[in-house]
Amino acid sequence: MLSIPVLLGTARDGASSDIVAAYIHKLLVLRGVQSDLVDPADYHEKKTFEKEHVKPWADIMQRADGLIIVSPEYNHGYPGPLKEMLDTLFEEFARKPAAICGVSSGGLGGVRVAEQLKLVVNELRMCAIREAVFFSNVRELFNEDGSIKDPSYDDRCAKMFDELFWYANALKAAREKM
Amino acid sequence: MLSIPVLLGTARDGASSDIVAAYIHKLLVLRGVQSDLVDPADYHEKKTFEKEHVKPWADIMQRADGLIIVSPEYNHGYPGPLKEMLDTLFEEFARKPAAICGVSSGGLGGVRVAEQLKLVVNELRMCAIREAVFFSNVRELFNEDGSIKDPSYDDRCAKMFDELFWYANALKAAREKM
Amino acid sequence: MLSIPVLLGTARDGASSDIVAAYIHKLLVLRGVQSDLVDPADYHEKKTFEKEHVKPWADIMQRADGLIIVSPEYNHGYPGPLKEMLDTLFEEFARKPAAICGVSSGGLGGVRVAEQLKLVVNELRMCAIREAVFFSNVRELFNEDGSIKDPSYDDRCAKMFDELFWYANALKAAREKM
Amino acid sequence: MLSIPVLLGTARDGASSDIVAAYIHKLLVLRGVQSDLVDPADYHEKKTFEKEHVKPWADIMQRADGLIIVSPEYNHGYPGPLKEMLDTLFEEFARKPAAICGVSSGGLGGVRVAEQLKLVVNELRMCAIREAVFFSNVRELFNEDGSIKDPSYDDRCAKMFDELFWYANALKAAREKM
Repeated sequence: MLSIPVLLGTARDGASSDIVAAYIHKLLVLRGVQSDLVDPADYHEKKTFEKEHVKPWADIMQRADGLIIVSPEYNHGYPGPLKEMLDTLFEEFARKPAAICGVSSGGLGGVRVAEQLKLVVNELRMCAIREAVFFSNVRELFNEDGSIKDPSYDDRCAKMFDELFWYANALKAAREKM
Repeated sequence: MLSIPVLLGTARDGASSDIVAAYIHKLLVLRGVQSDLVDPADYHEKKTFEKEHVKPWADIMQRADGLIIVSPEYNHGYPGPLKEMLDTLFEEFARKPAAICGVSSGGLGGVRVAEQLKLVVNELRMCAIREAVFFSNVRELFNEDGSIKDPSYDDRCAKMFDELFWYANALKAAREKM
Repeated sequence: MLSIPVLLGTARDGASSDIVAAYIHKLLVLRGVQSDLVDPADYHEKKTFEKEHVKPWADIMQRADGLIIVSPEYNHGYPGPLKEMLDTLFEEFARKPAAICGVSSGGLGGVRVAEQLKLVVNELRMCAIREAVFFSNVRELFNEDGSIKDPSYDDRCAKMFDELFWYANALKAAREKM
Repeated sequence: MLSIPVLLGTARDGASSDIVAAYIHKLLVLRGVQSDLVDPADYHEKKTFEKEHVKPWADIMQRADGLIIVSPEYNHGYPGPLKEMLDTLFEEFARKPAAICGVSSGGLGGVRVAEQLKLVVNELRMCAIREAVFFSNVRELFNEDGSIKDPSYDDRCAKMFDELFWYANALKAAREKM
């Protein structure tokens, strides 16, 4: 059984990214994956960089076989609190795949933040995968109960999961042989 | 008289980036520029995004004719607290030039964080200039009194200032004509 | 009177980028700008890097006050022939603004190639401006006579021109004072 | 036995990148890897994009288990001829790891071109690895017989090979199970 947490980009933009992260998390669990939903708002304090403070996040990532980041795009880059979460750990990420989903209230779905994050997770020794889902016009995308209006997103997520799980299984097998 | 604040990337890596920012700030003042030194540590709290909380930073940037960012490189990107400072304002940055200096304890001087930051300040309607100074091996670069061991850095900073001031004056003249 | 050439990204993808470049070129001329349309296909040979071979391109850029690049996105980056055109000159670009338009047969309009090109033109001492127009789903966007189906693009181009001309005039005035 | 070709960035800058590529190729063979040295100059013509023309390159990449790119940095980006080589194939790259080495006549070793190339190979469904070797001041780095003056580069290459081979074996095992 794979373990793949979902890391939220930030809590700032109201409920939009939260809803996307919850949607992905639910689909992930339906695929039989163990998954924690991690919110930077739970860690975002001056103490961020103290080891003890981030222990829950470190433990989740230690046992993970991969990671999905769901992030809004702020000025073409990533939110500060998300970056602090990534800068806090190191060995926990190694040789695990990462998928990066963008969220945007506009029409371009956060593709630019995904590019910047790929370079960051690469430096963390993660393997960024190509497949991603971009949630454009996010404020109009979900019903009030959190279900998605456009069912084609289910298929896009499934395609991303397929690639992510392929890498997660391949790298897990290799890590266990070491 | 030009006004060009120096924005520090972060307070996390001990004194290294602080020393670089203070060094640049001093050279800037010697060139007859009005300059504030801005430290994200003074703003880094949950309240970051409240307008009232960041008013001092907004006022400094409002009257500025340009900006110098002095940032360490964390995992090939920018520190979270620096990004929060940039995401907090918008109109205050418009049509002003930005120079980006990298700081690194290794040999590559933070050139990668400069690339990511150029894309961010561009979206903030700033004009990123080409000239930059990269401070490699920063822990060995300064004397205890904050003076720099390698005097060639003075010339590199002068070259960066020349380009930054050229843009600052050109854009200031055009802004005032509007 | 401003002079702003339009540099086409590549000739490979059939007529799509050509049509976009011709559309922008036409709007530019209507705004009273002198403009040459430059096609890498006219230069793309082994001799590319010989000075004599690229003299027409060098002359155009020498007298230009800015540049608009219209490029398709190939694997998130820029086409090779476009990059060769940019790598061929240097001083001709200095202290002039550049606007970058993306073209895509998909829904994301080439925003990623624009990010990579901003870093390239920045190194060429150009000032990349924020405003850009992205032509998504380009194959359905134009009528057979080259006119655009969605008239909102005229306004988006006008907004990009306003910012580009503002910078072009500001930097031209400063260059002439030197 | 792994098969890992070395793709040269360009032939333009005299012998510098050639020498680096030959050096890496030799070390690779010493580690028992089958490796072809691929030079864009052999393909760089108007016909680049015709399938038949690039068949040798397609065949090499088809049987490869990974790729090492050795590229100079041109204006912070990749050379046009290298990009054409990458844009020519697609399925041949899928689910194989890529290591990217930068070459520079200056002190910063081509780290910026590596960042841009990571995003390109990611879109080609390759897995960019973190480990890389950057060859700064390349004109002073090699003896006339092609041997390297600074033996620490052997260790840096060994470290890069270790990570690349780990990924190459992990992904090969998974590809064969499909």
